[in-house]
Amino acid sequence: MTNHYVIIGGDAAGMSAAMQIRRTLPEAKITTFEMGGIYSYAQCGLPYFISEDIASTDKLIARTAEQFNEKYNIQAHTYHEVTEIHPQLKKITVKDLKKNREFLVEYDKLLIATGGSPVMPDWKGKEAKGVYYLKTIPDAEAIYAMAKLDTVKEVVIVGAGYIGLEMVEAFHRLGKKVSLIQRGDQIANVFDKELAQKAEEYLKEQQVQIVLGENVEEILTADGSACGVRTDKSEYSSQLVLVSIGITPNTRMAKEAGIRLGIKDAIEINERMETNLPDIYAAGDCATQFHRVKNRQDYIPLGTTANKQGRIAGAVMAGGNKTFAGIVGSSVLKVMDYQMARTGLTEKEAKELGIPLETVTVDSLSHAGYYPDAKKLTIKLVYRKDDQRVLGGQAVGFGGVAKRIDVLATAIFNNMTVEELEDLDLSYAPPFNMSWDPIQQAARVARSQNKAK
Amino acid sequence: MTNHYVIIGGDAAGMSAAMQIRRTLPEAKITTFEMGGIYSYAQCGLPYFISEDIASTDKLIARTAEQFNEKYNIQAHTYHEVTEIHPQLKKITVKDLKKNREFLVEYDKLLIATGGSPVMPDWKGKEAKGVYYLKTIPDAEAIYAMAKLDTVKEVVIVGAGYIGLEMVEAFHRLGKKVSLIQRGDQIANVFDKELAQKAEEYLKEQQVQIVLGENVEEILTADGSACGVRTDKSEYSSQLVLVSIGITPNTRMAKEAGIRLGIKDAIEINERMETNLPDIYAAGDCATQFHRVKNRQDYIPLGTTANKQGRIAGAVMAGGNKTFAGIVGSSVLKVMDYQMARTGLTEKEAKELGIPLETVTVDSLSHAGYYPDAKKLTIKLVYRKDDQRVLGGQAVGFGGVAKRIDVLATAIFNNMTVEELEDLDLSYAPPFNMSWDPIQQAARVARSQNKAK
Repeated sequence: MTNHYVIIGGDAAGMSAAMQIRRTLPEAKITTFEMGGIYSYAQCGLPYFISEDIASTDKLIARTAEQFNEKYNIQAHTYHEVTEIHPQLKKITVKDLKKNREFLVEYDKLLIATGGSPVMPDWKGKEAKGVYYLKTIPDAEAIYAMAKLDTVKEVVIVGAGYIGLEMVEAFHRLGKKVSLIQRGDQIANVFDKELAQKAEEYLKEQQVQIVLGENVEEILTADGSACGVRTDKSEYSSQLVLVSIGITPNTRMAKEAGIRLGIKDAIEINERMETNLPDIYAAGDCATQFHRVKNRQDYIPLGTTANKQGRIAGAVMAGGNKTFAGIVGSSVLKVMDYQMARTGLTEKEAKELGIPLETVTVDSLSHAGYYPDAKKLTIKLVYRKDDQRVLGGQAVGFGGVAKRIDVLATAIFNNMTVEELEDLDLSYAPPFNMSWDPIQQAARVARSQNKAK
Repeated sequence: MTNHYVIIGGDAAGMSAAMQIRRTLPEAKITTFEMGGIYSYAQCGLPYFISEDIASTDKLIARTAEQFNEKYNIQAHTYHEVTEIHPQLKKITVKDLKKNREFLVEYDKLLIATGGSPVMPDWKGKEAKGVYYLKTIPDAEAIYAMAKLDTVKEVVIVGAGYIGLEMVEAFHRLGKKVSLIQRGDQIANVFDKELAQKAEEYLKEQQVQIVLGENVEEILTADGSACGVRTDKSEYSSQLVLVSIGITPNTRMAKEAGIRLGIKDAIEINERMETNLPDIYAAGDCATQFHRVKNRQDYIPLGTTANKQGRIAGAVMAGGNKTFAGIVGSSVLKVMDYQMARTGLTEKEAKELGIPLETVTVDSLSHAGYYPDAKKLTIKLVYRKDDQRVLGGQAVGFGGVAKRIDVLATAIFNNMTVEELEDLDLSYAPPFNMSWDPIQQAARVARSQNKAK
């Protein structure tokens, strides 16, 4: 008799795991339960549907529930919510949301891949028409339909993280007057302030209103529809309000079942994606990730990590030995023509951890200045004061930033020193690079700084 | 009394060394001798002057001899050829080409940075008008002037390496009918054949005539001007012939002075850029480079390496301790809309070295398929059969290849295994990448190949 593999959640982590189990064990019984109606979609693509870069949300669906069922023999249920886990019985309670009835399902190996939910504070007016967060395809379609109304001229985005900034582009493209409200003193909080300020300058030039250091207190409404946002300092007129202040892991049910939570209430897992309870695994936005530079568990929910963790969970559940090497905190975003990418630790993060550090920042170009279309970029390296190991890198500008961050992510993965960066043999031709890559220009400045001391 | 630092050659390696000495020793006496009239120009940019991407060759000059003299107190001579090295006397013979007189110069530390020269076989007709190689700014200007003549309708390029292919683009842009003749059975010989064939297909679609497996035997002339090229199999009409079949290190003088030559007659140097003779150093296209993957000296003349070696030579000559970490063989080229990049060893190269290997090739995209303008690319990994360490990577296609190769160059620099590539935390957003980077897609296929055995 073969094991029954049960997976809660039909998105990146869950379905990466399901597919990995299927590849490893062609005969295994695999059942997946998804609360919503759609499986395995590219969440990161949603802003680009709203911006009209992508014609239809269909393009964002990698595989449908039907395909999982028919092609891969995975019992992929939609509109089925798992409401309780019974670790002693090795059973879960599942609710068929359409038929509104509950039943028990036995598992041999269980994966919790319940993801995260957008944070929506308990503001007055938050239930009004025109107030959204962006997480699912139905969310994106509702936002798009609303944004296309002629009556919607002004949009307020609360929260200037990845989704908030990508949505600045989307609404700007649709011709809206966009205001971005951020509680802290900079946008893009996972970057150091002086780099975020470069993006702020650019956005202001594009007529985006940037509001920093204000707390939203209420969503203003008229006849049940949003008409503005009131902060502790001012009011902003708006017919559409997008709230994008982060996501929180969906772990209430796991906690009730006695599964240990870690940082930010995410499910604490080891490098094999195992929870503290036998035969129960977790992966993706509901779980922690080991951060190689911090050398501890962290919570940075991203699709790339969810894919990796799901795949490892599947491999381990199916009897394999793969372990998760951990994240280094890489990410990239584009807002109109501006690009921001980062990896490792920012100066701010490293200081919070009490790591003795040095930094170097250089302005450079995406490729040879004499070749057409070279884009300005700024690169910042953060490295340990004691042994010069690279702690982090940030690159912002009009081109070529993702390329440099991926090199730095690989360097940090391998514990390179800032001086070793100078030795890297990176590819060069005028349309692609400068003969000293901007990373190496920064490394050279770092070396002369270090010598001067 | 301070040392006299003498440098032969005023290009990338020589002037990187001079500047490094100057930065380290603000008072040092530094003298540089350049045979030609121009210092420190971006040789890699020359094809883009001919293609009219760059308006003037002035843009390719980083610093002039005057700037070196006035701003950096470097005695930078032009039209001065060093004709002999006298290691016992620690002197060199210098010929002032304009005044046509010779004199001796004493050195304490000598750097040979004489570069390389384009290979021009002893073909009948090679002296005819309209026959060129491309190495210097005057070469580029002569080629451009000739190519702009209405009478020049057909161009033959002999040799399909980096310069040959970049010049295909340049001449094509100028509206010429271009034929590319290559002795071997593929273009871009530093790539594996099946990848080069993809570029060949593309070029044929662009109406470039690709001639493989033919040996040029004669340049046909009429009234002292080139009118075609005769191979062992056929004849090709052409009013302009560019010969780009490689470069050979300028090391005759070094050899005569008793300096040991290595692979391909390049000056053999150690990781401190020292030759076998005391106080004589070499760097750049006239010297060998340590290849980290081959674990031996090699000869791959490139501007990036010349810059690095020059800088290290300067640091060591000035009393410092920097060593050259070596190359991994990274390079990239663009020919019209097609991009080719490589690092480490190709399958062909690894086989020649007798290394037991596996390969994996995947077709992928430069970024998320649903986001506009995703470009097709193909990535090939070559890795050791025994310990799965990555030996090399090649990426070809219509976009995103340099980015991937730089990640792989960093991975190879750090001796990563193909399975570790899968663990890399690379940046992702739909405009920049797929959620599994193409490198990781390849690594995954490699892992399942390895398991299946």
